[in-house]
Amino acid sequence: MVTTSPVKRIWTTELAEHIGEHVYMAGWLHRLRQLSNVSFLILRDAKGLAQIVVDDPGLVDELSKLHNESVIQVEGLVVAEAQAPGGLEVHNPRVVALSPASGPLPFDLFRPQLHAQLPTMLDHAALSLRHGRQRALFRMAAASMSGFRSTLTSQGFVEIQTPKIVAAATESGASVFSVDYFGKTAYLAQSPQFYKQIMVGVFERVFEVGPVFRAEPHDTSRHLNEYVSMDAEMGFITAPADVMKVLTDVIGGMAASIRRETPEAATLSGVVLPDVPQEIPVIHFTEAQALIAKGTGEDMSGEPDLAPAHEKWLGEWARREYNSDFLFVFGYPMVKRPFYTHPDPARPDFSNSFDLIFRGLELVTGGQRLHLYEDYLSALHKRDLDPQAIAGYLEAFKYGMPPHGGFAIGLERWIARLAGVDNIRETTLFPRDMHRLIP
Amino acid sequence: MVTTSPVKRIWTTELAEHIGEHVYMAGWLHRLRQLSNVSFLILRDAKGLAQIVVDDPGLVDELSKLHNESVIQVEGLVVAEAQAPGGLEVHNPRVVALSPASGPLPFDLFRPQLHAQLPTMLDHAALSLRHGRQRALFRMAAASMSGFRSTLTSQGFVEIQTPKIVAAATESGASVFSVDYFGKTAYLAQSPQFYKQIMVGVFERVFEVGPVFRAEPHDTSRHLNEYVSMDAEMGFITAPADVMKVLTDVIGGMAASIRRETPEAATLSGVVLPDVPQEIPVIHFTEAQALIAKGTGEDMSGEPDLAPAHEKWLGEWARREYNSDFLFVFGYPMVKRPFYTHPDPARPDFSNSFDLIFRGLELVTGGQRLHLYEDYLSALHKRDLDPQAIAGYLEAFKYGMPPHGGFAIGLERWIARLAGVDNIRETTLFPRDMHRLIP
Repeated sequence: MVTTSPVKRIWTTELAEHIGEHVYMAGWLHRLRQLSNVSFLILRDAKGLAQIVVDDPGLVDELSKLHNESVIQVEGLVVAEAQAPGGLEVHNPRVVALSPASGPLPFDLFRPQLHAQLPTMLDHAALSLRHGRQRALFRMAAASMSGFRSTLTSQGFVEIQTPKIVAAATESGASVFSVDYFGKTAYLAQSPQFYKQIMVGVFERVFEVGPVFRAEPHDTSRHLNEYVSMDAEMGFITAPADVMKVLTDVIGGMAASIRRETPEAATLSGVVLPDVPQEIPVIHFTEAQALIAKGTGEDMSGEPDLAPAHEKWLGEWARREYNSDFLFVFGYPMVKRPFYTHPDPARPDFSNSFDLIFRGLELVTGGQRLHLYEDYLSALHKRDLDPQAIAGYLEAFKYGMPPHGGFAIGLERWIARLAGVDNIRETTLFPRDMHRLIP
Repeated sequence: MVTTSPVKRIWTTELAEHIGEHVYMAGWLHRLRQLSNVSFLILRDAKGLAQIVVDDPGLVDELSKLHNESVIQVEGLVVAEAQAPGGLEVHNPRVVALSPASGPLPFDLFRPQLHAQLPTMLDHAALSLRHGRQRALFRMAAASMSGFRSTLTSQGFVEIQTPKIVAAATESGASVFSVDYFGKTAYLAQSPQFYKQIMVGVFERVFEVGPVFRAEPHDTSRHLNEYVSMDAEMGFITAPADVMKVLTDVIGGMAASIRRETPEAATLSGVVLPDVPQEIPVIHFTEAQALIAKGTGEDMSGEPDLAPAHEKWLGEWARREYNSDFLFVFGYPMVKRPFYTHPDPARPDFSNSFDLIFRGLELVTGGQRLHLYEDYLSALHKRDLDPQAIAGYLEAFKYGMPPHGGFAIGLERWIARLAGVDNIRETTLFPRDMHRLIP
């Protein structure tokens, strides 16, 4: 075992193209399986695993002194072997340690399940993220972002990146983190809402993928204080259904992108990808309440929102009734929606906004926004908010804004729901909650 | 003029396909040109402009009461007319005001140049961003992000989104914004550096496009306190040149993406897109110093960095010597680089890091990082930094990290340099500086 720098390298997944050849691979010492008369070194790289047969007792001895996760380079002969995983193994290896691990791991990474409590897993994110299931989940997250963007780009949306340090909160009432900004108090953006609306006046159709910050002191399994929001906003809609149509396309594009870009990830992580129907079923908020009341016996009248248990019930109902993982609930009461929400002209106490429920959990919130300057002034007045504090936003409406709407998808929640995990921290790269700021 | 909702709409750019037909368009009242016997209504939508001939004096009168930027819908007959811009105009219009502007604009948007001082332009970003040149610049920004991502994805990089609220500063010395995090002090991430390195241990090759925050109290034309960083990091490099090769591909991909996705934007904004050579010329830092000393007579010896004037000089030199808009300066002194920088083994006072100079301005910083745990411990010790404060980051190195490196490109600076503007605020969507937090 020597320590020099690697030569040209092939991926573990390319072995089949090199049968009978000497190759160089590099990656992590995933596992050393020592049997009585032979040992197997399992090498992991970004693409997969390779089985390397070690029959030289001296090398076995040297390798057994290396801890798992040491970075190594392996040179050897590729051999077809029906017994081996994938029908291939590497013989006569020569191993170079590039970066030895300095001790035993807090948990095994080679087992199908990571046997660690959630806090342990999160404390050691630098290691737990190397586990196959975690890698699969975050590859799906990457593919989802890619599907989100490509679907919208193909429909004429333009990508924007808007500031996260802001002078005023987006939605009155929601808690914001404050930042010491050169001696002044600023805030972290709770959403790109104001900016994406302004940008509808510029590009008509825009999207953004970026962090949002919520200072709510909640300590639940489905909330985070920082998460990735995939936002879109579009102008010249004729009805909120135009927004719901684009959202339906986007969700379908995200699922398709996972299938296309990382087909093995779903299998590895136990994810069952949904079929996204061309048209997702829609029910009105009041209709949903009536159904829940009828189904559960609960009196829902006057309730301005749906509780998580109700969303769950509706998810099951949509599955039974429409064989659908998705359900739009349209027309939430105005009282629970932010000031920029457009009311339903026919029933002004209800809004032209919606939630998309995916497998019983709210995944997306969206809707039509106000577009007339006077409507903004009266909406703000009604809620006792100061137009002066958001003058730069209101200027867009003062100078001509089309009817428009949009939506925001929580990336981590999407992956959590796909994987059927209960705690969203499992599908968040480095989660931030009331008690966790590291790593 | 009535106010109802629009019917099916065509883009201004689609007129040629509808000659002789009645069409509906929608967009902004870009301009009304009133001549003695005829008036021209110019309609702007996200794709372009259309000229509408108004010969009904009643309609001219009504339109003249609408301020520019009012959102309107226009129905009319498409006519081929050699005199008209693009050879097409619309006759017999019927106009519907969807959202009238409530007053005159602070500046004209229809002129080729925006005649406004920078502060005025930024104060009224909701309007100035609608100007053709600004729209072109931010379309190029969108195309650049797209080119950055597609180039890296095609080379096996995986997209990540890492937290922006962090417990410790990335680079000692650089100023950070502090956040009140549930009564504790947290910070805004100055870069995704720590996280992208951890993720090299997971995916080998990763990238991120997202905001970074710098609390430096500088008030210059090339710095911002929040900007968009396009970061990449890759494992199993054999030399820093591997990183420089990927960066060269990425810059080429960004330029190609602008050409492909928004070909008209460069023309509209006066941008001359660079030819990115297959191999960008490289000179060592000491060589650069010697050249500058020789060329300018300045004594550079012992200087640990290049001043903006020196970068400018080098930019001109690269143009003369290599006919190149780009120049790599390699091997900056260790003393000016952050603790995770890998030294040049042959000259340990100099680093395996580089800057990429684009048209005389530093556009990208990158290099090889330390990968051995012990090297981190001694680098931190040497700078009197506490390993315990960044234990979650160091854990990645404790358990096997390959030789790796990466880079970060400032999006706004790239567009500023392309457009040849002096102040980076012109190419920042909603800039944040010491004095500006709105809009």
